[in-house]
Amino acid sequence: MQIGMIGLGKMGYQLSLNLVEKKYDVVAYDLNEEARKNISSEGATSVQTIEELVQQLEKPRTVWMMVPAGDATESVFQTVLPLLEEGDRVIDGGNAHYKDTLRRNDAATEKGVYYFDCGTSGGVDGARHGACTMIGGDAEVFKEIESVFHDISIENGYLYTGRTGSGHFLKMVHNGIEYGMMQAIAEGFEILEKSPFDYEYEKVAKVWNHGSVIRSWLMELMESAFSKDEKLEGIRGVMQSSGEGKWTVETALDLQTPAPVIALSLMMRNRSLEDDTFTGKVVAALRNEFGGHAVVKNEK
Amino acid sequence: MQIGMIGLGKMGYQLSLNLVEKKYDVVAYDLNEEARKNISSEGATSVQTIEELVQQLEKPRTVWMMVPAGDATESVFQTVLPLLEEGDRVIDGGNAHYKDTLRRNDAATEKGVYYFDCGTSGGVDGARHGACTMIGGDAEVFKEIESVFHDISIENGYLYTGRTGSGHFLKMVHNGIEYGMMQAIAEGFEILEKSPFDYEYEKVAKVWNHGSVIRSWLMELMESAFSKDEKLEGIRGVMQSSGEGKWTVETALDLQTPAPVIALSLMMRNRSLEDDTFTGKVVAALRNEFGGHAVVKNEK
Repeated sequence: MQIGMIGLGKMGYQLSLNLVEKKYDVVAYDLNEEARKNISSEGATSVQTIEELVQQLEKPRTVWMMVPAGDATESVFQTVLPLLEEGDRVIDGGNAHYKDTLRRNDAATEKGVYYFDCGTSGGVDGARHGACTMIGGDAEVFKEIESVFHDISIENGYLYTGRTGSGHFLKMVHNGIEYGMMQAIAEGFEILEKSPFDYEYEKVAKVWNHGSVIRSWLMELMESAFSKDEKLEGIRGVMQSSGEGKWTVETALDLQTPAPVIALSLMMRNRSLEDDTFTGKVVAALRNEFGGHAVVKNEK
Repeated sequence: MQIGMIGLGKMGYQLSLNLVEKKYDVVAYDLNEEARKNISSEGATSVQTIEELVQQLEKPRTVWMMVPAGDATESVFQTVLPLLEEGDRVIDGGNAHYKDTLRRNDAATEKGVYYFDCGTSGGVDGARHGACTMIGGDAEVFKEIESVFHDISIENGYLYTGRTGSGHFLKMVHNGIEYGMMQAIAEGFEILEKSPFDYEYEKVAKVWNHGSVIRSWLMELMESAFSKDEKLEGIRGVMQSSGEGKWTVETALDLQTPAPVIALSLMMRNRSLEDDTFTGKVVAALRNEFGGHAVVKNEK
């Protein structure tokens, strides 16, 4: 079976290797020439343009977009959709907002093109050796491409989730849960770090991964991180985020669903981006105003 | 090796079976006559009183207290300590507050008795077939009883955590993390439940356990729970707690450590205990006062 892969970044490149290994005929495109050259040497056919990619695929075509959510996905989608024909399929494997997915699905449906949204978890290693995929789209046509998801995912690691949008929605919520779990784990280790006891965190993470209630892949990753840097002294506690946590909180607001832990996990990430805060200045100023409490002066 | 087990409740009974299986000579006591009778038929020696238990053990004795934290532990400790002699060891396998443990350790140390605090995770099944244990206490004497923890825990499932108190402290923080992880998972499923899509939660939990970032034992337990009751319609969302979450939050306050997610997980549990809230009444009354917004009237 042929798969047209658009995007050979961290995820798309590994996914292409995974597909090649599973005997798919991968036609791959990326803006970056080096990525194209590399994937060619790994058994995929690389092409210079999206037009060429579409031409190389037999009908009905299956085009996998594996590019960052937002502008990149929109740009690829706007380029590829006019080139496709009735019965072709587009899979968006990125982390698009489900409302963008619904909008793109409307445009695709108008052309008779089937749009599938595939939430992909498991990181780069998962993309290479077995991902966890959650796929929304037409139930009947899904059966025609189901083998792809079966083959690139680990055993029991793919799920047809319902109509288009449900895959990205589920992946979004997955990431929201991930924010909360990560923050909970992190708060626990900070309490240990400030405790009157002297713990070896790698060993703590290890014992928690053997029989405890909180054993998890995230705790295994902590074991790995602490094994490299036992107090994480080499990194600053700046917590970036890439959108899905914010979308989960916005969605919770839209649905009038209380989700305080996911929301606060996001807020704590935002807090970590600031060295000092205006909130802090305001509270310090007010304590000084009403109680004469000393403020910490800014050094000039 | 002899072990004196005090407490044959859910955990102590299973732990005794585990010890008997590992060829320990278990001398067991519980207030409940039936529990004593049952454990006798499983290969342990049951005794009628704590005095008798202490008499049956050769010096240096090893007494394991497996009773609920708080009054029960204090009562057993006050009963058993006067009966013990220099060089004997007491293991508290319950979820005591680490400050109580430090206090009991002082009393034990005064008598020359070694006090070990063993945080135990993994639930009833863990106690029976392989627990996760975190043990604080004297480093040298620990070596003499280390085989017990090795034998009752799963492989790599025990850790000597440092001086007395560090085992219970670590278990407390473990439970705090557990609160946050559980609330994050729960919020995610509530967003799915209110979403415009129609998910099968057992399948969602299952796919998330195969290759996703949030795969974890808790998610496996969700898969099991949803397999029995696909929308959890048989149970009300009342979230009890048994103390360690509150202690974790109190400890975070003592240590001036921000732990908002663990704190809010606890608050949400408390919220779930109330059908209606005074907070809700106050906010509704204020909105009515300043804006004339309608209130929901209480039915008489």
